[in-house]
Amino acid sequence: MAIITLTTDFGEKDHFAGAIKGAIYSEMPDVRIVDISHSISPFNIPEAAYIIQNAYSSFPDGTIHIIGIDAEINQENKHIAMELDGHYFVCANNGIMSMICAEISPKQIVEINIHDKIETSFPVLDVFVKVACHIARGGTLGVIGKNITEIKPIRNLQPYVNDEKTQIIGSIIYIDNYGNVVTNIKKSFFEKIQLGRPFEVSARNHKFKKIYTKYSDIVNFDTPEELRTDEGRGLVVFNSSNYLEIAIYKGNTGNIGGASSLMGLKLRDTVSINFIK
Amino acid sequence: MAIITLTTDFGEKDHFAGAIKGAIYSEMPDVRIVDISHSISPFNIPEAAYIIQNAYSSFPDGTIHIIGIDAEINQENKHIAMELDGHYFVCANNGIMSMICAEISPKQIVEINIHDKIETSFPVLDVFVKVACHIARGGTLGVIGKNITEIKPIRNLQPYVNDEKTQIIGSIIYIDNYGNVVTNIKKSFFEKIQLGRPFEVSARNHKFKKIYTKYSDIVNFDTPEELRTDEGRGLVVFNSSNYLEIAIYKGNTGNIGGASSLMGLKLRDTVSINFIK
Amino acid sequence: MAIITLTTDFGEKDHFAGAIKGAIYSEMPDVRIVDISHSISPFNIPEAAYIIQNAYSSFPDGTIHIIGIDAEINQENKHIAMELDGHYFVCANNGIMSMICAEISPKQIVEINIHDKIETSFPVLDVFVKVACHIARGGTLGVIGKNITEIKPIRNLQPYVNDEKTQIIGSIIYIDNYGNVVTNIKKSFFEKIQLGRPFEVSARNHKFKKIYTKYSDIVNFDTPEELRTDEGRGLVVFNSSNYLEIAIYKGNTGNIGGASSLMGLKLRDTVSINFIK
Repeated sequence: MAIITLTTDFGEKDHFAGAIKGAIYSEMPDVRIVDISHSISPFNIPEAAYIIQNAYSSFPDGTIHIIGIDAEINQENKHIAMELDGHYFVCANNGIMSMICAEISPKQIVEINIHDKIETSFPVLDVFVKVACHIARGGTLGVIGKNITEIKPIRNLQPYVNDEKTQIIGSIIYIDNYGNVVTNIKKSFFEKIQLGRPFEVSARNHKFKKIYTKYSDIVNFDTPEELRTDEGRGLVVFNSSNYLEIAIYKGNTGNIGGASSLMGLKLRDTVSINFIK
Repeated sequence: MAIITLTTDFGEKDHFAGAIKGAIYSEMPDVRIVDISHSISPFNIPEAAYIIQNAYSSFPDGTIHIIGIDAEINQENKHIAMELDGHYFVCANNGIMSMICAEISPKQIVEINIHDKIETSFPVLDVFVKVACHIARGGTLGVIGKNITEIKPIRNLQPYVNDEKTQIIGSIIYIDNYGNVVTNIKKSFFEKIQLGRPFEVSARNHKFKKIYTKYSDIVNFDTPEELRTDEGRGLVVFNSSNYLEIAIYKGNTGNIGGASSLMGLKLRDTVSINFIK
Repeated sequence: MAIITLTTDFGEKDHFAGAIKGAIYSEMPDVRIVDISHSISPFNIPEAAYIIQNAYSSFPDGTIHIIGIDAEINQENKHIAMELDGHYFVCANNGIMSMICAEISPKQIVEINIHDKIETSFPVLDVFVKVACHIARGGTLGVIGKNITEIKPIRNLQPYVNDEKTQIIGSIIYIDNYGNVVTNIKKSFFEKIQLGRPFEVSARNHKFKKIYTKYSDIVNFDTPEELRTDEGRGLVVFNSSNYLEIAIYKGNTGNIGGASSLMGLKLRDTVSINFIK
């Protein structure tokens, strides 16, 4: 059975996500619909790019991913469908796919041109659903659009390295449900520059000389539980998506607070890494 | 496979929605359950009415919609099931269905009377699930209730037109995930009164002389992108559900704010349209 | 078709829940995945325990429940799988199951030991999914872990009764979507101590001498609707899960406020019941 996933900024309350699901089942009774997220911040392309990048590859090959963010069509915002890494993506050409495409080349990209027949103010419902069901039935991309070779990039999403290779300057691209802040510095990128040298990670006035592999690695289990003070302590890890993350052990956005609020770190803030020779 | 949708004010956290789904699968393993929304504001009947009205018709004919809002049974709040427009609805007789019924006449309405056998403080679980599964198995409404011909209305949901037909007075019935404010003035109603005359839409001290068909219609694409100031600008559109909506281009409830916060517009506020002869 | 449910603190926005679903469908195309809740407060074990306890038993026998809270493995936090009451549970050994186990004895508990082969910083994805799919395919617990007989308890979750049996001292363990506050005092426990005696429920300076069976029982239906003042009134009920709850009639966390905000009641606050001889 084909799988169609949904990643949107529709929120949890409005009728939009429900209407989309109804429209898919109306087109195609035998399909599996899976919500990835409907809580992307409205019109936030980098957030959507981060979420779809880290969710899609868990799904089986052939899965079709509808991304409903900033999808209103106009002369500068066209709709595209893409085959990449064995998966299909249907979205607006607004930069969302540039994060994934920076690592993996698409096999085919088309600019959707079935709009001539469809006048709509709700393109995710009226266009993306039709395209996704077309693909789910085994249809080719060529039928619903014309081939293109380039997509719109998101600017400033890659970290910067100085000429001497003594410094990486990255930025915060995502704040997760625990208040942990995720940077755009991937583990593979870091290791390529580091080459085994000692380093210091800086974010505002916070400094870290170690990157952990899991959150509880900062706990000293030799100390009796009631004497430990690890909850609420800051640390740096490569998270499960292999991005460098500044975290608080057992942080949360409720009572004790997360890394974002406790350390005063916000989206787009700079995080730098200095290497010592 | 039968489809049962859920629209409730249970929220995203509590166990209620999960328990409902478990109960449906326990009654009927082969059914498709689709969440429309669990984030209706608690006990907010007009909000639920707006959401179910705009979601239901995307689903295939024969879909059964459970609406779990203000469902506790008492002498003034009975449970009903209804066939309308090829769909089935199971809910309390508290006004939720009056918005849809104002446009489309139900084929059959029954007041559910299987309660004699069921003592419950969670009627959505214990009653609505049984009724929905009965319908999903092909059972008739007559078996689970007695026919009635009238349902409880929601008052003051229709816009008002003055005798001279120079003014429509509507109100704000919904605020969406982008902070856009939706009025109770439908496009068809507006056009019937307008008859081609010029007009002015007023909400507090905000005035608009044009209604767009999509949000990006206010953008002047001849201006270079970096010089544009359209994000954050107010406009009026007929939204994808054909209701008159006061919106902010790329508005959101986060950083730049939505129409509701930026223009100071709240639920139940008046929006008027004056026609010039 | 096997059913796997998800109860986590991943939130509605992040990619984690979507990735889990993708991983399950990749392992096992023919399974039904049901979200119970992804909005548990981060690392809040008692909240998760309350939600899973009240949701699981609606599902059919044989359902597999993945609970993804505080699941990072370390020397003090092992992973377990359990058969109890005809259901299967996969989670960390951090107290989550102690609330259910206080009432129903597990048939089998194993400490999962397939980790030797799996190095992971996202154990719900890499370990729990594998275990759940193993069970869903009919595999035994013995294959994926070694039998244990005790699990980690949550402390202070049971209400206290004085020696004279004139007082129950409970506490608030959950605040629901309506702002109603749920205590740890179950109906069966209350009745065993009460033995028909009159009583007074106290929470801060609020006193109640009656426990209702449904919320609208406080409404005086003889008074005309427009003269009633019941909305916003406090009451005590046994909720649909049979826990003593302090509620506000038609309370919500929006305009009129819920019991929590209106009465100043917070998680872990004391609620006492005094019996009069």
